Amino acid sequence: MTDVVDEHTMRSVRPGPARPPASAPAPAATAEGYCRVRSVTEALAAPLGPEDQVVQSMPDASPTKWHRAHTTWFFEEFVLGPNAPGHRFVDDSYRYLFNSYYEAVGPRQPRPQRGMITRPDSRQVGEYRRRVDEAMGTALDAGDLPAEALALVELGLHHEQQHQELLLMDAKHLLAQSPLRPAYGPAGAPGRKRRRGDPAVAPVGWRGHDGGAVEVGHGGRGFAFDNEGPAHTQWLAPFELADRPVTCGEWLEFMADGGYERPELWLSDGWHLGRAEAWEAPLYWQRGVDGPPADRRVRGSGEWQVFTLGGLRPIDPTEPVVHVSYHEADAFARWSGARLPTEAEWEVLARDHWSPPARGHLPGLHPTPADSATDSATNSATNPLQLCGEVWQWTASAYLPYPGFRPAVGAVGEYNGKFMVSQHVLRGGCCATPPGHERVTYRNFFPPASRWAFSGLRLARDA
Amino acid sequence: MTDVVDEHTMRSVRPGPARPPASAPAPAATAEGYCRVRSVTEALAAPLGPEDQVVQSMPDASPTKWHRAHTTWFFEEFVLGPNAPGHRFVDDSYRYLFNSYYEAVGPRQPRPQRGMITRPDSRQVGEYRRRVDEAMGTALDAGDLPAEALALVELGLHHEQQHQELLLMDAKHLLAQSPLRPAYGPAGAPGRKRRRGDPAVAPVGWRGHDGGAVEVGHGGRGFAFDNEGPAHTQWLAPFELADRPVTCGEWLEFMADGGYERPELWLSDGWHLGRAEAWEAPLYWQRGVDGPPADRRVRGSGEWQVFTLGGLRPIDPTEPVVHVSYHEADAFARWSGARLPTEAEWEVLARDHWSPPARGHLPGLHPTPADSATDSATNSATNPLQLCGEVWQWTASAYLPYPGFRPAVGAVGEYNGKFMVSQHVLRGGCCATPPGHERVTYRNFFPPASRWAFSGLRLARDA
Amino acid sequence: MTDVVDEHTMRSVRPGPARPPASAPAPAATAEGYCRVRSVTEALAAPLGPEDQVVQSMPDASPTKWHRAHTTWFFEEFVLGPNAPGHRFVDDSYRYLFNSYYEAVGPRQPRPQRGMITRPDSRQVGEYRRRVDEAMGTALDAGDLPAEALALVELGLHHEQQHQELLLMDAKHLLAQSPLRPAYGPAGAPGRKRRRGDPAVAPVGWRGHDGGAVEVGHGGRGFAFDNEGPAHTQWLAPFELADRPVTCGEWLEFMADGGYERPELWLSDGWHLGRAEAWEAPLYWQRGVDGPPADRRVRGSGEWQVFTLGGLRPIDPTEPVVHVSYHEADAFARWSGARLPTEAEWEVLARDHWSPPARGHLPGLHPTPADSATDSATNSATNPLQLCGEVWQWTASAYLPYPGFRPAVGAVGEYNGKFMVSQHVLRGGCCATPPGHERVTYRNFFPPASRWAFSGLRLARDA
Amino acid sequence: MTDVVDEHTMRSVRPGPARPPASAPAPAATAEGYCRVRSVTEALAAPLGPEDQVVQSMPDASPTKWHRAHTTWFFEEFVLGPNAPGHRFVDDSYRYLFNSYYEAVGPRQPRPQRGMITRPDSRQVGEYRRRVDEAMGTALDAGDLPAEALALVELGLHHEQQHQELLLMDAKHLLAQSPLRPAYGPAGAPGRKRRRGDPAVAPVGWRGHDGGAVEVGHGGRGFAFDNEGPAHTQWLAPFELADRPVTCGEWLEFMADGGYERPELWLSDGWHLGRAEAWEAPLYWQRGVDGPPADRRVRGSGEWQVFTLGGLRPIDPTEPVVHVSYHEADAFARWSGARLPTEAEWEVLARDHWSPPARGHLPGLHPTPADSATDSATNSATNPLQLCGEVWQWTASAYLPYPGFRPAVGAVGEYNGKFMVSQHVLRGGCCATPPGHERVTYRNFFPPASRWAFSGLRLARDA
Repeated sequence: MTDVVDEHTMRSVRPGPARPPASAPAPAATAEGYCRVRSVTEALAAPLGPEDQVVQSMPDASPTKWHRAHTTWFFEEFVLGPNAPGHRFVDDSYRYLFNSYYEAVGPRQPRPQRGMITRPDSRQVGEYRRRVDEAMGTALDAGDLPAEALALVELGLHHEQQHQELLLMDAKHLLAQSPLRPAYGPAGAPGRKRRRGDPAVAPVGWRGHDGGAVEVGHGGRGFAFDNEGPAHTQWLAPFELADRPVTCGEWLEFMADGGYERPELWLSDGWHLGRAEAWEAPLYWQRGVDGPPADRRVRGSGEWQVFTLGGLRPIDPTEPVVHVSYHEADAFARWSGARLPTEAEWEVLARDHWSPPARGHLPGLHPTPADSATDSATNSATNPLQLCGEVWQWTASAYLPYPGFRPAVGAVGEYNGKFMVSQHVLRGGCCATPPGHERVTYRNFFPPASRWAFSGLRLARDA
Repeated sequence: MTDVVDEHTMRSVRPGPARPPASAPAPAATAEGYCRVRSVTEALAAPLGPEDQVVQSMPDASPTKWHRAHTTWFFEEFVLGPNAPGHRFVDDSYRYLFNSYYEAVGPRQPRPQRGMITRPDSRQVGEYRRRVDEAMGTALDAGDLPAEALALVELGLHHEQQHQELLLMDAKHLLAQSPLRPAYGPAGAPGRKRRRGDPAVAPVGWRGHDGGAVEVGHGGRGFAFDNEGPAHTQWLAPFELADRPVTCGEWLEFMADGGYERPELWLSDGWHLGRAEAWEAPLYWQRGVDGPPADRRVRGSGEWQVFTLGGLRPIDPTEPVVHVSYHEADAFARWSGARLPTEAEWEVLARDHWSPPARGHLPGLHPTPADSATDSATNSATNPLQLCGEVWQWTASAYLPYPGFRPAVGAVGEYNGKFMVSQHVLRGGCCATPPGHERVTYRNFFPPASRWAFSGLRLARDA
Repeated sequence: MTDVVDEHTMRSVRPGPARPPASAPAPAATAEGYCRVRSVTEALAAPLGPEDQVVQSMPDASPTKWHRAHTTWFFEEFVLGPNAPGHRFVDDSYRYLFNSYYEAVGPRQPRPQRGMITRPDSRQVGEYRRRVDEAMGTALDAGDLPAEALALVELGLHHEQQHQELLLMDAKHLLAQSPLRPAYGPAGAPGRKRRRGDPAVAPVGWRGHDGGAVEVGHGGRGFAFDNEGPAHTQWLAPFELADRPVTCGEWLEFMADGGYERPELWLSDGWHLGRAEAWEAPLYWQRGVDGPPADRRVRGSGEWQVFTLGGLRPIDPTEPVVHVSYHEADAFARWSGARLPTEAEWEVLARDHWSPPARGHLPGLHPTPADSATDSATNSATNPLQLCGEVWQWTASAYLPYPGFRPAVGAVGEYNGKFMVSQHVLRGGCCATPPGHERVTYRNFFPPASRWAFSGLRLARDA
Repeated sequence: MTDVVDEHTMRSVRPGPARPPASAPAPAATAEGYCRVRSVTEALAAPLGPEDQVVQSMPDASPTKWHRAHTTWFFEEFVLGPNAPGHRFVDDSYRYLFNSYYEAVGPRQPRPQRGMITRPDSRQVGEYRRRVDEAMGTALDAGDLPAEALALVELGLHHEQQHQELLLMDAKHLLAQSPLRPAYGPAGAPGRKRRRGDPAVAPVGWRGHDGGAVEVGHGGRGFAFDNEGPAHTQWLAPFELADRPVTCGEWLEFMADGGYERPELWLSDGWHLGRAEAWEAPLYWQRGVDGPPADRRVRGSGEWQVFTLGGLRPIDPTEPVVHVSYHEADAFARWSGARLPTEAEWEVLARDHWSPPARGHLPGLHPTPADSATDSATNSATNPLQLCGEVWQWTASAYLPYPGFRPAVGAVGEYNGKFMVSQHVLRGGCCATPPGHERVTYRNFFPPASRWAFSGLRLARDA
């Protein structure tokens, strides 16, 4: 990781290679590829103590220890069990404890009770990982895994990368519950060396598209999740997309204009939810309060601050806003006189500019300010349009199967398809997404009320 | 209403005109059109006593009395108030009590508390209706309402028709809460004169479409809700649609095959909801129990029965299944090796066969058995494909704005747009839909968990 | 009812006999006694329309119609069924619908669902009452009911009197849910003809007792509920009791002194409950808000008002405070440097002053101001110490069985005993208690969080 | 710990002194007394890893780490802060995090959120304890603490002993949530060496009392909590108490006789709660299920087992039953034709037989079988009547202030008094109660629905 990145953004947990690859490779089903992905998980867990790793902060989140074990379970259950002759399961109880939601595999620890599993402890989970990694290394080195098994290894590595991002999301949520607002990692230098008088982030620019019949979805070359295909035609009306995500500065304007108090800007569900939960800013924002120990529920009246994986810090108006729900994103878009893009609009425009930024091999902790890379942040050579690497971008599209969608055969067929209702698609990838995990066809998804993902937005409008 | 209909289906609350129009006209913003729609509401409320009209059986449902008053409020608030010089509101408190969800109009009685409004009583609500009707009649007869007001009258009549269907849905839900299972109206003759040995309903047939670029949405001629437009292009893959809805007999097969116990058939949300609420059949189905007074929560082990607006009766396997959630519809489709249609697929195919059945002027109480009209029920001249008039049909499409959608200006802009999230579209129209209210572009919508609408399904498959 | 009472308090629903008995007699198991009690129920229901009579405002409250039917069920189930040869139950379903909680009798409509019983309607319930009354009249006139049956008739009449008070409590709660705050009956003249400058209610006086071994509980002469006995010895330390209940004026002082905001005054449960439910005054108190239609949840900033069965009216500082929970009563007592009395303390002191006030045969709607009767209200000849007839008085005693308590044999053994946990005893009787129903040994009981009973308090202190 | 105890009961966590004192002394406010109590807490926490120590299994329970820190906070906040000149609080945030419920001290971490405090971690809490212990040792050795401070030290030690028992209760509850049912400590030898054919526990014997005026409550000699006084007179009717607690064998008979399915045996609240929570046995009992990993919610159909701090083991019919709610205890007593004793009955009879058993200095993990000590277990010389040391015994008495009760002055006045509502008193002491903590006047208290305390029962009856 170069000095520039180090000073300005501190996006990595720890120093990466001196010269990051132009673009991190996607995981490969080789011993080396396996080790590279698996080691990232352990590196991400390293700043968290045993206590941090076991607690579940809400039903939707999982303990770090559980993420570490569940990703291991995936390889043992789906690869080693059926394919490694004589493999003995490390512990039969783990097959129950660390199954996430695969009904076809058998019963499992209920999701809201994952935090009750104090044993095996973190150390034992480490041992679980080591023993499975050893068996996997042996099997991969031997080179005799059938193609279907290798496909499951590849899937397991992408699965593990997803959990790396979830691990950071969930750890952030947990740490935010503490009145002490402890940092996961070092806060690093301030987001930017901006001084009063520096020019603000440039106004948004718009990239147009003429619409018509377009091809979207993954066409079959290289790895993709089943939900990204099949490739198919959609018809689009002419549209324009913003050349960067919405910033915190713009969000402060929305707030100042009564954005959270004006029902006409909101979908009905969002309005009532926001009232019930007293939303007045994105998740993790709080007004400054004086003196420790602060009761996080006491509202101060000072400047807005944001809790990050590096601890509390002032709002940086040039950063992409993050941790907003679909409802907030939609309300902001309406306030702006714009709208959210559909996932097809996003994809066809993004395809022309797709170039994931060069980063170290570890996910980052915080979005990068818009002006940190070049003088024209929104069209930077290193991260054009900030399509990925900063914040996931809510789309107006519900998460539904593409025409002709068929889930994978077997238990892993439960991977994606059974969640295709009552959620919205997010596109791109965020600072916490492992490098190499992004794809232009990638379909992330969360319920419209969710805020704990690194979710922001990009505006669209009819041409 | 002809004898034939009368005997075989008893779909109407009371005898209609001897010769129903080939197709009921849509409401018109004239004194005569106004009276015709308004009188239907009162006819539908007539079988319900004051007690039946005031109780709210769940937060999603509203009391009959409230429906009667709210539809009246619409005309007073949006038409008379701004347009009838010197109009004095019948009672200022009604402006609060009977506002449904219009934030722009002002505060209102919270939805879950509508059942607490015991006063004004049913008689006073009748008086409210009479006084507003009188003022509306005067205004309409005078012929000097501006065009925008006349548009609101038209909207108000379609709005009232929607509430006529809701009134029946909600009354049914209320009556179903009583352990006595009282009938709203006369049970009528049995659904059909079928005897053992009669041929069952014909197997489903499939109507194909070649796909490609198609036009969908309302193009501007005649009344439509704002959410039906604008007309726009969509691209479809080739597909086929079933020529009739799924029947109760087919649903019994699904149940017999463990449909409610097999997680692989279900979306994850639906599976967990069904478990939590102990779904084992459509809403209002129950196994027979012996002897009054029956505790409705005690499961018997006898034949399946269904509670209808005419009381409890045996399942008729030839009727379209009704009162299933999106989750159940989706699981059934998966079990069938088929899928639900998208709303665009439904619309383009339905357009070619659109011919709402001739019926009396009152909504009906129960779907019509598939074989009641002709020997080829599924392609009947009187209700081709049973597209409307029987059951709403869940589609795979989330309820989202069409490209270029703009809500209406003013408070009525809240009519549809603000609900465009977390719901699915249903198409067609049902037995309880007022004749003349159906349109091929009509977009009904409910959350995927809803079961109290007259919701069924029609299968689709890739060609 | 004399003119004086009529003008000053309007405590009755309707004019009573010109000359009320000095003290109303307890119900007697005769045809005449039966009719007298039964007719009061119908008189109390009379101001409520069918809609008012069917709605259930919360799980703890019951619809008026249900009270009317359940009290009738008691006589049919326990007296006519076993004792009237050839009696045919009016409707078998009523045996299910109107059983309250008698497990020994059989299953029943769940309490929180009583409001779903729209049928039978109010008129049919009236018919039910008439038919049971006729059969009861016949049986009582015939004079051949066995002693046990006559005891059940007597119990049934006291039971009906309890429901008369519950009917008023529940109707008040229902009407208070309406933003219109409709009156159950005529508001009547203002509570008192007080003018600015009139003397306030006299300071509290104290009545002492030397303590030692005392006899408490019902000794067997005349009717009493099983929970009032057996008579037994308790040992008391010397104590003093206030000679009147706490007034609204004193409660306003408590509020002004931060009574609802000072945790040191409260039991822990009460403090957290009060915070969670935003208590800042007794139930039914609200600050004045401007202009109809008022959203009752919007706090105004004007004078405190109280919703009564006669509608909204200003607080009268001379009235006993009513509709406070045990928690509030306890906090007030602590604030006063006093405490609540035990039920034994209350009983031994009350026994010496027991003289229920002369009233008409109907319960009243509102407590009587302390100065309405004589110049020394707190020691009035007509209602000495306001022991009963105004507000129930919370005691420090948990509702537990007396030593040697044995519940009655048979289903009516469920009448009282099974509620003897997690409740506190209230003593006295209130304005809404039917005349003749009071006893010095009477043990009323409610959970400490309850506020919808006519519950106030009287202070005690160690001598 | 003698071999006998070791073999037969394994009641201690670890080997104690070779020769336990005849009766453990109550804590003393000396450096030595301080150290003895404080070291027990750490010994009890020792078998629990960092993960076990941080998780909160329900809102009523607290994490081990929190218990360790909160007991330390007590000394720092109430003793060192006001009395140790120049004392600097170890960490200001701890004053917020580890305050339990003292409103007078300031705001605090909400109880249900105690499990969110992953930092400070267990090691830091150990350091907190060491630093406070050092300062306390210095202050106690210096001998210049004022009498009030010494009284608070003594209170703090008794407070810490209470938390030692809570720590075991809460750890047990947490471990029971795991489907693995992990043991807190070694299971030890089976409860007893009983063989088929051995005599069962002897039938219960009865100890009578003539009643009359008795003195109860703590009279002022030696330490007692404020809620144990003042000593005062009560009047009792003649009664008898069982000479031992109810056993598991007797509980199995109750279950076999339909105890959990017969509403006539239950208080109404208990019946409905038991139905809602599907009670069919004491907490921690389960029927045997086959094969790991067991889903704890799946009921097997094998023999009843019980989860103990030593893991799952068969029910021992001679042990006192434990982990029953007040509702269950009351139902059992009714089924037995007996009742629960009042706390006064318990106290006056227990006073004559009071002799806490000789035990090591550590609390135990499980009740002792009735026949483990002598051939007449119920009247053993080492633990006569099993009054304490085995199970807390529910009494029929609500937890209310004694006549003349005055809470302590200052913040510690919140220690007991503010919980005096909606709870019932338990008497005696249990296996998990630290030796030396028992008193014949001790008033433990829990809500009637609580089951996670070591709560059993002893029968009483009228003489």
